[in-house]
Amino acid sequence: MGMEKHYRDEELSEYLYPPEILQKLDFTKSPATFKPKISAASPGEDWMVVRPLQRSDYDKGFLQLLSQLTSTGNISKKQFDERFTQMKMSGGYYVTVIEDKRLAKIIGAATLTVEQKFIHNCSLRGRLEDVVVNDTYRGKQLGKLIVVTVSLLAHELGCYKMSLDCKDKLIKFYESLGYKLEAGNSNAMNMRFEEPS
Amino acid sequence: MGMEKHYRDEELSEYLYPPEILQKLDFTKSPATFKPKISAASPGEDWMVVRPLQRSDYDKGFLQLLSQLTSTGNISKKQFDERFTQMKMSGGYYVTVIEDKRLAKIIGAATLTVEQKFIHNCSLRGRLEDVVVNDTYRGKQLGKLIVVTVSLLAHELGCYKMSLDCKDKLIKFYESLGYKLEAGNSNAMNMRFEEPS
Repeated sequence: MGMEKHYRDEELSEYLYPPEILQKLDFTKSPATFKPKISAASPGEDWMVVRPLQRSDYDKGFLQLLSQLTSTGNISKKQFDERFTQMKMSGGYYVTVIEDKRLAKIIGAATLTVEQKFIHNCSLRGRLEDVVVNDTYRGKQLGKLIVVTVSLLAHELGCYKMSLDCKDKLIKFYESLGYKLEAGNSNAMNMRFEEPS
Repeated sequence: MGMEKHYRDEELSEYLYPPEILQKLDFTKSPATFKPKISAASPGEDWMVVRPLQRSDYDKGFLQLLSQLTSTGNISKKQFDERFTQMKMSGGYYVTVIEDKRLAKIIGAATLTVEQKFIHNCSLRGRLEDVVVNDTYRGKQLGKLIVVTVSLLAHELGCYKMSLDCKDKLIKFYESLGYKLEAGNSNAMNMRFEEPS
C-alpha cells in the first residue's frame, strides 16, 4: 500500500459542479457572433465536449494547458486532488474545460468564480479567470466558446455582473463578447507579495 | 414565538473569521505612511476597534454604512444571517470592520476575498472589495487603515497577490499603499446582467 490515495472510476469522473447546467445555456442571449453557430451543448465537432472540470483531468493535460498561460509549478496528483476537493467544498468555483475526446486531452479552459456579496440585496458577482485554449486548435472559435459558456453560466447562476481583468490586446475580443470598459472606473491594480509571510 | 430565529449572546458576537490574526499584522511591512502611526491592533483611539464582521453588526449599522458605497437593497436580518453563515461555511471571506465602541456603530469596512487557484502551484489570490468609511470620521486615516489591514491579511494568509478594481480618482490613493497599475495589463472590464435568467 503506497501513500497515494486510490480512486475508483466513479470518483475519477467526479465533476466539480453539475454538468447539466451547461446543456441548457442559451447562446442566443450572448452578443457574440459565432460562424458557424456553436454552443456548449453543440461545440461544433462530435469529438469535442464542453464540461466541468473532472478529477481525472489531472491525467488529461489540464495543468499542462494552464502552463501555456502562466507558471503552474510542479503540482502533484495529491495537490490537485486536494485543491479540487477544497474548491468543491467551498462552492462558487466553476472551472470549465473543453476536451478533445479522441485524444482524452483538455484543449481549452476558463474559470468562473462566484463571489457572495452583501451589497445589491445579498447579490452574487461573477469573475472570469484563467482563460486558455491550446493554440493548435485555432479557427474553431474555442476561446469565444469557453468565455461565452462561463459568462452565460454566471447569468444563469444569478450573478448581477461578471468581471475580468485583461491585457490591452484582449480588450477588443472581450468587447465583442459583451464586456465593457466603464468610463472612469476600469482600473485593475495589483500588489504582489514576495512570498507568504 | 415569531418566525425569526433568536440568537443567544455568544451567537451574536460570533466572528466571520478568527480575530486574533488581525492583532499580529506587522504594519511596518506596508509601504503606506501613517501620521501618527496606527495599526489594526492600535487604531489610534481607545474607542475604536478593527475586527472581523460579527453577526450582531446587522444592528450596528453595517448595511447602512455599505449603502454609502452603493445600493444594498432592503436586507432583512434573516437574509443577513444567511449570507453571514454561507460566507463562513464557504471560507475565503474576510469582511473586516472598524467599530466606534462608544456608539456601537460600524464606521469603516473592507472585504478581502481569497480565491483558490491551480496556477502558481495551487496558489491563493486576494481581492479587495467594498471599501467604505463613514465620512464624518475624516482625518483619522481610517480608509488607509482598513485597506492596509486587509492587504497585510492577504499576505499573512499566503496570497501571492492582491487585486482591486478602482475609479480613476482613487489610483493615487491605492498607489500610496503599494498597489500598481501594471503596464499593458490593467484593464478591468464588466458585463452587467439585467436580472437573473
